[in-house]
Amino acid sequence: MSTPLDGATLLERADALAAITAGPGLTRLYLTDEHRRANALVGHWMAEAGMAVRTDAVGNIIGRYEGDAPGAPALLLGSHLDTVRDAGRYDGMLGVLTAIACVGDLHRRGRRLPCAVEVIGFGDEEGTRFQSTLIGSKAVAGMLDPAALAAVDAAGVTLARALTDWGLDPARIGDAARRPGEILAYAELHIEQGPVLESLDQPVGVVTAIAGAVRLSVTVGGTAGHAGTVPMGLRRDALAAAAEMVLAVEEECAARPPVVGTVGRIAAAPGAVNVIPGQTVFTVDLRSERDGDRDAALAATRARFDAIAARRGVTLAVTRTHAAPAVACSPALIAQMAGAAVAEGFTAQRLPSGAGHDAMAMAALCPVGMLFVRCRGGISHNPAESITAADAEAGARTLLRFIEGFRPAAA
Amino acid sequence: MSTPLDGATLLERADALAAITAGPGLTRLYLTDEHRRANALVGHWMAEAGMAVRTDAVGNIIGRYEGDAPGAPALLLGSHLDTVRDAGRYDGMLGVLTAIACVGDLHRRGRRLPCAVEVIGFGDEEGTRFQSTLIGSKAVAGMLDPAALAAVDAAGVTLARALTDWGLDPARIGDAARRPGEILAYAELHIEQGPVLESLDQPVGVVTAIAGAVRLSVTVGGTAGHAGTVPMGLRRDALAAAAEMVLAVEEECAARPPVVGTVGRIAAAPGAVNVIPGQTVFTVDLRSERDGDRDAALAATRARFDAIAARRGVTLAVTRTHAAPAVACSPALIAQMAGAAVAEGFTAQRLPSGAGHDAMAMAALCPVGMLFVRCRGGISHNPAESITAADAEAGARTLLRFIEGFRPAAA
Repeated sequence: MSTPLDGATLLERADALAAITAGPGLTRLYLTDEHRRANALVGHWMAEAGMAVRTDAVGNIIGRYEGDAPGAPALLLGSHLDTVRDAGRYDGMLGVLTAIACVGDLHRRGRRLPCAVEVIGFGDEEGTRFQSTLIGSKAVAGMLDPAALAAVDAAGVTLARALTDWGLDPARIGDAARRPGEILAYAELHIEQGPVLESLDQPVGVVTAIAGAVRLSVTVGGTAGHAGTVPMGLRRDALAAAAEMVLAVEEECAARPPVVGTVGRIAAAPGAVNVIPGQTVFTVDLRSERDGDRDAALAATRARFDAIAARRGVTLAVTRTHAAPAVACSPALIAQMAGAAVAEGFTAQRLPSGAGHDAMAMAALCPVGMLFVRCRGGISHNPAESITAADAEAGARTLLRFIEGFRPAAA
Repeated sequence: MSTPLDGATLLERADALAAITAGPGLTRLYLTDEHRRANALVGHWMAEAGMAVRTDAVGNIIGRYEGDAPGAPALLLGSHLDTVRDAGRYDGMLGVLTAIACVGDLHRRGRRLPCAVEVIGFGDEEGTRFQSTLIGSKAVAGMLDPAALAAVDAAGVTLARALTDWGLDPARIGDAARRPGEILAYAELHIEQGPVLESLDQPVGVVTAIAGAVRLSVTVGGTAGHAGTVPMGLRRDALAAAAEMVLAVEEECAARPPVVGTVGRIAAAPGAVNVIPGQTVFTVDLRSERDGDRDAALAATRARFDAIAARRGVTLAVTRTHAAPAVACSPALIAQMAGAAVAEGFTAQRLPSGAGHDAMAMAALCPVGMLFVRCRGGISHNPAESITAADAEAGARTLLRFIEGFRPAAA
């Protein structure tokens, strides 16, 4: 008979959650009817696993499994239940489902821990609806700026209005914040969303830090001209200059692992087959678990940009559009998670998280730790997102072992 | 008192023609009311310059100034009267206006030449309305494919219908074709549309050839991925690969003057700041007055593309979207034009034309020659297109001297 930790059951539950969607594919946004239905299903599973269930002031669903003594501080587990548009079914959800399965296993065995265990399904991490990520975990960490209530969705509905329509009180979002002593640590299991574990043939890994990121918008100004009439030596081609810069980003990051750098968008104007580009705009995204390395890559890249622009006689305008420092996972939690992974027979591969997660916000409240589960091809934010039942089970078993051996540490 | 060769008068006439436009700016399309009004104004100037004026079977306007004996073969001068959208006022028009001014000067002096002189204002060179360039000159050269009658404009009107609506007979477009013996040569004055004469501080230049062109559409296929989670060494970034290819186009062309190569359009998909591009599509436009050089640049570029794709593990699909051979100007006409330029005090700079012109089509009928006039910054197809009165006059005087010294040559 399947236990709640059974991988097939975890995947079945992910399928059941994925059926709660607005439209074809999987799109489930914050404070919608789909959010309410997902909370109801998750709440049902939480109750079945022996937890007392409630919804907090911003729509996060929370299950609590008491420890040896009622009212003890809690180890908080979880992840998010919202999705991007046309999403995969494991990003976020797997962390909630494995956590419920672990508590269910404790409950079935009648096992109580020195601390309480809580499981949370955050209502918004992706920011798909209000373009403001981590609303759920920021609220719990006490970091949600009330100014966020004025954010509007694509239909012009404010967050404040959406909370009201959902039955919550915008004036009371502060009630979602937990007091520091209440939560001993936050542990999140998540699919890797990258190819590292797959390349190493490991089902689980332990996250060392969530990478910090800086994003740039770069505008290169050259001189537009007729593709046939301007000799190569008289050109100031904005796209050729930008192409050199794209390669500079790649080279400077490749030289500084674990820094990664990406040019994801590029546009050349006027954009005709027979016109030399007079302007090119592109984005740069630089990340690293070590802010110093990222800053060094940024400085080197900027210097290369300047040199390229000067040599080619093009103008350069660089705007920083986003900057966030790296968030380190707690060394004590890393060690405990790694111990659990080794005890389950894995190598406890340590790796950074290049993507953002709820743990970033939760780090303001308590020590955080993360377990990664291998996903096929590193593909995420896509219907093709895929994991195996065996890997889901490996992740859940490692998480359970971590929970049972959990020892609170200084933050 | 101004003579018709006076530069200020030429610019005033260009301004008067530019006032005949559909909408703000200058947009004058083939077989429109603006075309009819431009022909009427140009016909008035032709008549004033002593020419017999007619409109041919495709709407080109033609003025004829007889030679010593009526009915003699003609030296044909001219260019086009249609424009791109939001055009400059000299591209095409200057060639017609300077030719009329030259004939007007002969007429005022009562000077007859051994041959007739005709001036033509082609109705369509740009192809703006029917996406089919050189309709006017192809018809005169006897090269207009009747299949072109089925071409439709943005409103769904066929060329056949537009001819009928304009008062012409689609069944008789063949009547526009001239017999080879009737036209001794075609000489076209045009603004350079490039920066070479400006860089050399010369008002006029003599065109050696009209560059041939090949255009490619290139699709690079990599693997999309999260900008934060895929280490640099595990990426197959379609934009980084394309950036190398953009630089390869530039390098291979720069190494083979007078070849020029341009990547004018580029798009990376999915095109998000935080996603590694999984696909990049870009265009390549390669041109040269020497087909062999262009083909060598193309082969070298393709080899570089293949090597880049193989090294980076990305896929490559290259489609040839256009190919046209170079058209050489007549060595005899080049020599005569250069002689005229030197006699006017200029250096007779020889240069290729990277842009297409009516002379390309006319080369199927007779020897062709072209004079270029300097334009500011090489800017064309733009309201900022600009020439000086002095340069317009320098061009007209060189053209007049060429006409007066014209000696027919074997094709």
